[in-house]
Amino acid sequence: MTRRLRPRPADSPLLDLAGNDYLGLARHPEVVAAARGAAARWGAGSTGSRLVTGTTELHAELEAELAAFCGFEAALVLASGYAANLAALTALGEAGTLIVSDAGNHASLIDGCRLARAEVAVVPHADPEAFRKELSAHPGPALAVTDAVFSVDGDIAPLRDLSAVCRAAGAALVVDDAHGLGVLGEGGRGTPAAAGLAGQPDVVATVTLSKSLGSQGGAVLGPARVIRHLVNAARTLIFDTGLAPAAAGGALGALRLLRREPERPARVRAVATGLHGRLAAAGLDVTRPDAAVISVRAPAPGEASAWAERCREEGLAVGCFRPPSVPDGISRLRLTARADLTEADLDTAAGTVARTAPPGARHPA
Amino acid sequence: MTRRLRPRPADSPLLDLAGNDYLGLARHPEVVAAARGAAARWGAGSTGSRLVTGTTELHAELEAELAAFCGFEAALVLASGYAANLAALTALGEAGTLIVSDAGNHASLIDGCRLARAEVAVVPHADPEAFRKELSAHPGPALAVTDAVFSVDGDIAPLRDLSAVCRAAGAALVVDDAHGLGVLGEGGRGTPAAAGLAGQPDVVATVTLSKSLGSQGGAVLGPARVIRHLVNAARTLIFDTGLAPAAAGGALGALRLLRREPERPARVRAVATGLHGRLAAAGLDVTRPDAAVISVRAPAPGEASAWAERCREEGLAVGCFRPPSVPDGISRLRLTARADLTEADLDTAAGTVARTAPPGARHPA
Repeated sequence: MTRRLRPRPADSPLLDLAGNDYLGLARHPEVVAAARGAAARWGAGSTGSRLVTGTTELHAELEAELAAFCGFEAALVLASGYAANLAALTALGEAGTLIVSDAGNHASLIDGCRLARAEVAVVPHADPEAFRKELSAHPGPALAVTDAVFSVDGDIAPLRDLSAVCRAAGAALVVDDAHGLGVLGEGGRGTPAAAGLAGQPDVVATVTLSKSLGSQGGAVLGPARVIRHLVNAARTLIFDTGLAPAAAGGALGALRLLRREPERPARVRAVATGLHGRLAAAGLDVTRPDAAVISVRAPAPGEASAWAERCREEGLAVGCFRPPSVPDGISRLRLTARADLTEADLDTAAGTVARTAPPGARHPA
Repeated sequence: MTRRLRPRPADSPLLDLAGNDYLGLARHPEVVAAARGAAARWGAGSTGSRLVTGTTELHAELEAELAAFCGFEAALVLASGYAANLAALTALGEAGTLIVSDAGNHASLIDGCRLARAEVAVVPHADPEAFRKELSAHPGPALAVTDAVFSVDGDIAPLRDLSAVCRAAGAALVVDDAHGLGVLGEGGRGTPAAAGLAGQPDVVATVTLSKSLGSQGGAVLGPARVIRHLVNAARTLIFDTGLAPAAAGGALGALRLLRREPERPARVRAVATGLHGRLAAAGLDVTRPDAAVISVRAPAPGEASAWAERCREEGLAVGCFRPPSVPDGISRLRLTARADLTEADLDTAAGTVARTAPPGARHPA
């Protein structure tokens, strides 16, 4: 089946459980005002590479506050989350290094591994022992890389165990917290903070500014020496235009709002749990959400897109994962919780998903 | 020497000949208003992948107007110019394909070649005959890739000859017009349009929204069937958040302004020529500009950064290229023309560059 783009209007009537705006901040007046204010003050674009004219004081401010919030020493902002993952893996995964990568990792981590000059070993999903074996077999420098919250099923990586394995092997741990920032950890400080790993000398995290922070861009968080190395070695930083001021400003506005309203992350988790409960009660094969992502299994590959289409016709936007964008070949609906969904929204959403389910999507009664 | 980021204030006193804001639109009131208006209407972020919630009607509008302006059938907007090049090369450079790549190509094209599953042959700079030899030796599908305006020296690729070579071999031609859009071609329609290649069935162009259009993002332009293929195959489109509305809106505002003020591209070229004349008259080893980029050779590798620093101390921001970011190992100052520079600005800039030149930078008298 061919994918196509479907432009949405500004006032779409669809109930959106497909986007990644977990905290409902993309259209929050304060975040929008911060984006608008940044464009007014700094211009529509950053005008150059971060190394030339593309670093404004706004970028530096965002980096300092983001690092402090997440508990890391330093941060480096890039034009997208994809670019942040490429930056981290290509700069740290030099020739002679081994990168051990979880089989469920996001495409941008996979592409980062491919672009890096390092040797790469892919290990089974969420299996610290498999990481240990690969790391112990490699004599030189090494790093392990994993999503914190996996984007397809929404499950959390065993970060503490992975960190212990890495530390014993003298390897660094790179964690992509795209789906954890703003959702997990105290006040939304993210999955590394929740696991007690933020700020550790051998832990690097990547985050996105386009999900919980409602904007655009990505960042790498880590020890200051690692960030300095990235400034000198990361090609997606050196050879791409710096993030637009409006995006940096919007993300900074969202971060400040999140600090002031630390109950938002708890609300998005409660929404996810409420959605899971309703879908499970309807007999659907649904993952228990560790964060904001819920996956509903379709009975056979290929049926997910027709199911998503039926939801859409009934006013509900849901995501749909199917081969080849899922490594395990299983087709699913993907629903995302949002902090500003009401209980009535959850009833509507779960009712629609259940009503439109294909035969065989329900557990035998 | 270690690179570091230097955050600039909003009211920097430096005369900027380092950025890529060729038409002086990044801070143009109309472009800024378009960016602000888009954030107000659509939010601070696009909330998801272009395939899920990240395509707004604003993205579609920008794509239609950009394709029409540049003379191509269709366009696809990505989060950055780097992402656009990765999209084009990975989607078109499938396994079994040969990509022939100019040795002077930009880092994002090089990384696109590395990420693609295709076989890659790198040929000497601006050498159609070398392209012909590689293409004729390959039995399967092939494409040639080149910058239109090379970012280091600012020279133009021999696009007509390359196109003829490609057509004879049945290969596609991919042209990165990051530095040509808004500068070359009638009214700034870009280098492919200037060479009569826009809209050809075997020509694909990539552009950036962050240089002449003063915003952020990139786009791939080409036949509708190629764009449809990218929607289904380009990982930087499928697995990254869509461009933020403010960036799409700013770029669209700049494009409309450019259509209404078609004299801006001629002005930026006149500024480049004026700058070249002044620097050459001062005895410096300076490239004749084909577009807006001027390169001034430093007498020995390594001296360029000290020279750029002296310019900065005297109030002039210039770029600096040095190994390893230049393939030929030659260190240079890189100056960029901007349509809103005055003759007095050019006198100041050229005077500063000449006055701070290291011994040996001038031609023997």
